[in-house]
Amino acid sequence: MNVESVLRMNPGHEPNSYARNSTHQRNVLFKTMPIVKERVSALYRKAIFPKYFALADLGCASGPNSLLAISWIIEAISGLCSQTGRSLPEVLVFLNDLPGNDFKTVLSSLPSFYENLKEKNRVEINCYVSAMPGSFYGRLFPSRSLHFVHSSYSVHWLSQVPELPEQNKGSIYMASTSPSSVFQAYIKQFQKDFTNLLSSRAEEIVPGGEMVLILIGRSIPDPTSKDCCLLFWWLSRSLVEMADQGLVEAADIDSFNLPFYTPYKHEVRDVVEEEGSFTINHLETFVVNWDPFCHEDDESYVFDKLKSGRNVADCIRSVTEPILRSHFGEGLMMDDLFERHARLVGEHLSVEKTKHFNIAVSMTRK
Amino acid sequence: MNVESVLRMNPGHEPNSYARNSTHQRNVLFKTMPIVKERVSALYRKAIFPKYFALADLGCASGPNSLLAISWIIEAISGLCSQTGRSLPEVLVFLNDLPGNDFKTVLSSLPSFYENLKEKNRVEINCYVSAMPGSFYGRLFPSRSLHFVHSSYSVHWLSQVPELPEQNKGSIYMASTSPSSVFQAYIKQFQKDFTNLLSSRAEEIVPGGEMVLILIGRSIPDPTSKDCCLLFWWLSRSLVEMADQGLVEAADIDSFNLPFYTPYKHEVRDVVEEEGSFTINHLETFVVNWDPFCHEDDESYVFDKLKSGRNVADCIRSVTEPILRSHFGEGLMMDDLFERHARLVGEHLSVEKTKHFNIAVSMTRK
Repeated sequence: MNVESVLRMNPGHEPNSYARNSTHQRNVLFKTMPIVKERVSALYRKAIFPKYFALADLGCASGPNSLLAISWIIEAISGLCSQTGRSLPEVLVFLNDLPGNDFKTVLSSLPSFYENLKEKNRVEINCYVSAMPGSFYGRLFPSRSLHFVHSSYSVHWLSQVPELPEQNKGSIYMASTSPSSVFQAYIKQFQKDFTNLLSSRAEEIVPGGEMVLILIGRSIPDPTSKDCCLLFWWLSRSLVEMADQGLVEAADIDSFNLPFYTPYKHEVRDVVEEEGSFTINHLETFVVNWDPFCHEDDESYVFDKLKSGRNVADCIRSVTEPILRSHFGEGLMMDDLFERHARLVGEHLSVEKTKHFNIAVSMTRK
Repeated sequence: MNVESVLRMNPGHEPNSYARNSTHQRNVLFKTMPIVKERVSALYRKAIFPKYFALADLGCASGPNSLLAISWIIEAISGLCSQTGRSLPEVLVFLNDLPGNDFKTVLSSLPSFYENLKEKNRVEINCYVSAMPGSFYGRLFPSRSLHFVHSSYSVHWLSQVPELPEQNKGSIYMASTSPSSVFQAYIKQFQKDFTNLLSSRAEEIVPGGEMVLILIGRSIPDPTSKDCCLLFWWLSRSLVEMADQGLVEAADIDSFNLPFYTPYKHEVRDVVEEEGSFTINHLETFVVNWDPFCHEDDESYVFDKLKSGRNVADCIRSVTEPILRSHFGEGLMMDDLFERHARLVGEHLSVEKTKHFNIAVSMTRK
């Protein structure tokens, strides 16, 4: 299934919704597709799903990208079966996200998804897609019920804001100005959450089963580095600007922190090794531009700082608006905030083209 | 979990929604609970789910009743385990309805459902509730993946309006005034749909697995009987009244028929035997008042025709409004229609207290 048909099925109705602003995540999916296909192929060679293949996508959000990843996985299986002359397995898919997630858009798009799947693979595939609500930091599925787990751009969200022993003044995430206790609290929360994710999946994935996780990380061990802190720095600055103009309470900024963590790749590896249930196959890193519409290989591309700033602000808004709304209340003028954010990011990008540093880790259940 | 806690979790926000007008269906659930529990117990004795129990509820709608039924089934298992000293199985639940169904209400109520389940059973139950969208007249689940299937008040809805060789003038369902070809087309559609339901579930339910279906039926073979026709007769009359006053096109009534069928119990039995995959254990019938708030055993109950008419009209509206809207368009004045319907039903009930005739059939996969 091509990207356009997925988008057509699932256009997203809210102007600032994730469904409409998920271009960045889609770019990341395209980059990681080869890893996912390779692990599906590895799993197929082990022949542990001759008749039945169960897979889960963790943090599916409103779904267009999630269904895109699912369609690639199914295509990979279908291709392998056709090469080897084996018959297609039945496929059970669980799309997971928190119970309050908008599952409606993705569930109502399933009839066209099935139609496209059949058309693309030129064969009837017994594929059953369900929604499984809950936190992926706890148990979600019965024991030994899954063969493959995929998650893209979700695991950098923590289960909760870390408990900070000192206030993180004037910032909503780790910043170079934050006290060292803030960094320690963040990494501790990441280690705890990521361990819970691994030990929960360890119960649910069959021995030999596969998991591929893609998340935002940082390129160097130092957590005060730009890779780590810059992402939300301009959002902090936008809020502080508004506070300076009396539009936001400064105390509300000081008491707000995002439940987010951008680990260094060794931090990911260390938790996997410490938890002990999985063997890492690949731990790769790659970058994508902050502005999802900035394609360097396109010679006709002309940088426009306002446009680029807006593109980045739209992305950030689509994933942070609900949490900002819940802390700052109805009084927070969201359009104003992200106007400022777009301007500041645009100015920043005109000085320095910045990229997200990403980690893709694939692992096998021992 | 008691009824109130289920309702509290899931109050339903639309005034005419199914979630708010599902008292009738809840009364039916209470009546059929002993059958469901008995079949869970029969399944438990066969010991085909020592560690893992998978169940599906077909036609879950927005969910409060569906979760009530699920909680009873889990309580039954928990009780049996505690009696026999066996450990609790993990429970995987699939709530099914069409892809356009409002799954949001039920999915977002799951955290409180789990909380209540734990409280009620005084033990941690590994229960995982998911939503599986699709038509139960086709395949929904992988082969041999279910132990128990439950469906209450859904199977009387056909997959489509039967193709009628003659027009069913002035009526929206089978009526004593309908040509005999209309009756024949309706039963043929029921036989086809019910066969598809059975043969799809036959693939999905493990040998020895159980299915309990509860649906509206009729008490005598004659399809022109009141049991069968009266239910939607007053809705037809309300539409005809509006047509007489120029508020609805008469031709729109003539071309509209509900995809619904109220079988005689032998019709149900015959299809099950003809399809051949299931053995019937029970085929019981029972009645419930049209007015879900009319409790005959309550001595303080005083009949009020307006109130009773309104109660029935609210029930019928909650299940027919979307389909009426889709045929008659935005121009149909829904409040006006159901005002008339409430009045006509109230007048009818003041002459004759009418009851729904229901069929509960439990069967075992051979």
